[in-house]
Amino acid sequence: MPENRKKHQLVILRLGHRIPRDVRVTTHVCLTARALGADGVIVADTSDKQLVDTINRVTARFGGSFDVETGKPWRSAINDWKKSGGKVIHLTAYGIPLPRIIGRIRRSAANKLVVVGSEKVPGEVFHLADWNVSVTNQPISEVSALGIFLDWYYGHRRLERIFPDAKLRIIPTERGKRITKA
Amino acid sequence: MPENRKKHQLVILRLGHRIPRDVRVTTHVCLTARALGADGVIVADTSDKQLVDTINRVTARFGGSFDVETGKPWRSAINDWKKSGGKVIHLTAYGIPLPRIIGRIRRSAANKLVVVGSEKVPGEVFHLADWNVSVTNQPISEVSALGIFLDWYYGHRRLERIFPDAKLRIIPTERGKRITKA
Repeated sequence: MPENRKKHQLVILRLGHRIPRDVRVTTHVCLTARALGADGVIVADTSDKQLVDTINRVTARFGGSFDVETGKPWRSAINDWKKSGGKVIHLTAYGIPLPRIIGRIRRSAANKLVVVGSEKVPGEVFHLADWNVSVTNQPISEVSALGIFLDWYYGHRRLERIFPDAKLRIIPTERGKRITKA
Repeated sequence: MPENRKKHQLVILRLGHRIPRDVRVTTHVCLTARALGADGVIVADTSDKQLVDTINRVTARFGGSFDVETGKPWRSAINDWKKSGGKVIHLTAYGIPLPRIIGRIRRSAANKLVVVGSEKVPGEVFHLADWNVSVTNQPISEVSALGIFLDWYYGHRRLERIFPDAKLRIIPTERGKRITKA
């Protein structure tokens, strides 16, 4: 049994990715998901091999396992997740504030799909989601909303995680840059 | 004395903003800073009137006060801050993990300048900063690093804040979108 086997999975579903407009922001979504300990990202509807390569290179160098899939239609991604017993969280400024709902979400043992949009999210997503969750009820970035959500979901305990199988490891330091090769 | 007067200020310094490449990510930095309760953003070296207008429109509609300044040289921004007694925090994957250092930062009563870069940050910044802080020691986004830092800095208590003088207010709801006009 692999050491990093987990009881349940948490995957991000990124909606509304357009090339080239969203490439950088979607990259930030993927890096945030990986750094905070999510298991992978599905980029809906748009295939983007370059994005997959970029993120896979980061994972190969800095360790851990992280899956990136692109091009799956968003509705099937959500419906397949629900059919297999998973729960769906949609991050939106219109949802229930994170502090009020995180306890309920964390008590659920189901696999979690965390949906983040870009500018326009289809209204149907609000109804397909098990939980619509707001990280502040203000206009915010989906990147920081995701980061804060994951930090709370993992109980503020994933910020010093050591990733297995890393080729490069950053050594925390007060001044400057220290990095070791494995 | 205005109701929202604060004992000390927290302002973000955004480095390396290039037009058009960084416009969206810098906008995400500004929205994150405002939503989480920071007092303003300085975008270093590059004047960007459109960005200022975009963020000022959000503040006019959704309330609170939030200052956006662009074009100030980064070195003077940092040095002026320090000369007036403020402390400088630099968010970098190479720094000391947030959980180990946040207590010390929060105990300081000085005004805080939180520096976030884009791709390349001048080495001098690591030495000018009072604290180099990492939000994970992994490649991450400056947008989510800033969001998580601010959430911790404000004791995880700014996610349900009501902004004064809002023209529009989002009403948290389980499904769909509810918004009221003041």
